[in-house]
Amino acid sequence: MGKPLPRAASGPSPLLVNVSARHCHLTQAAVEALFGPGHQLTPFKWLYQDGQFAAMEAVTLIGPRSRVISNLRILGPCRSLNQVELAYTDSISLGFDIPLRSSGNIQGTPGCMLMGPAGFLEMKDGVIRALRHVHMSPADAAFYGVKNGDNMRLRVGGGCGAIFERLLVRVDPSFKLEIHIDTDEGNAASLQPDTPCELLK
Amino acid sequence: MGKPLPRAASGPSPLLVNVSARHCHLTQAAVEALFGPGHQLTPFKWLYQDGQFAAMEAVTLIGPRSRVISNLRILGPCRSLNQVELAYTDSISLGFDIPLRSSGNIQGTPGCMLMGPAGFLEMKDGVIRALRHVHMSPADAAFYGVKNGDNMRLRVGGGCGAIFERLLVRVDPSFKLEIHIDTDEGNAASLQPDTPCELLK
Repeated sequence: MGKPLPRAASGPSPLLVNVSARHCHLTQAAVEALFGPGHQLTPFKWLYQDGQFAAMEAVTLIGPRSRVISNLRILGPCRSLNQVELAYTDSISLGFDIPLRSSGNIQGTPGCMLMGPAGFLEMKDGVIRALRHVHMSPADAAFYGVKNGDNMRLRVGGGCGAIFERLLVRVDPSFKLEIHIDTDEGNAASLQPDTPCELLK
Repeated sequence: MGKPLPRAASGPSPLLVNVSARHCHLTQAAVEALFGPGHQLTPFKWLYQDGQFAAMEAVTLIGPRSRVISNLRILGPCRSLNQVELAYTDSISLGFDIPLRSSGNIQGTPGCMLMGPAGFLEMKDGVIRALRHVHMSPADAAFYGVKNGDNMRLRVGGGCGAIFERLLVRVDPSFKLEIHIDTDEGNAASLQPDTPCELLK
């Protein structure tokens, strides 16, 4: 789901808002524990950020009350830590109480069990709701007059519009301009591919 | 979930924001089809609006692809039509495409099957996502300078704040000031009992 929109002013990048469904990031060791020794993730669909992909592989998440989410998608490539990103609606259905964190900031967060075709992985921590955020290049950051770690706002138009505040700015030379919100946020505002959106300072 | 907050200015009513989980309203005939002849709904929990209650009784909803939601709560007392109110996250998990409607405006909406301990009820229509709305008395409407059918905005504060636009104003002498949003909206903004909220014109 998303909508490339030319920015009104002189900036070079279109504005794309994508809804991240629940997913996980895994280390290569975790992939091997779940899918077998030597297993490599297979790209299923390339994402907008260069080199990032949704993998063919999915796992089953087992929550604290033995409630499960099946078909939890793995995003690749592998990272240096294991992290599960859920919407609050997901976590409530599982019986989790999860914190709102920026990606990678998982200290003190709850864990879970993951189950794959070749085995289980016990995550001691790493289950979070990811902060809504916007990826951008240094050129886009200059255009908007913001820096890494700042907050912006996303206005979603349409018949069920909303303004999402505290949208974390993440700047990196490898990033293309893209806003990530989760399914709770996308559904709350009924974001469709043709919904007009605006990034506000 | 909700938060009574004294309004800053001279108005008499506290501001309460409540999250409506998925539920249904039924006619007495529907209750009898599902629970048996002569069955009356039993109040389980009284709601904030006078005379309204969550019933002890719940039903199973069967969607178009035979996916189900169990324990769909019935709200009482009985009404003159059958209506199911879901969040978009619910409807997506069921495989429904449901419209955003004000309560009671169900013409042309999709239907579903409901299952109770005594039988089934086929609803030809009536499955909606309810428009976010605010109940208020004529005195509250005068205080805010709005009338029935207008739109206001709800600002939810906190670490994951949002401003929800197009909040439908519903005015009736029997109403107490109360904002109703659904679980997608409440979870998107991480609304907790102590989250500061503001009703904006």
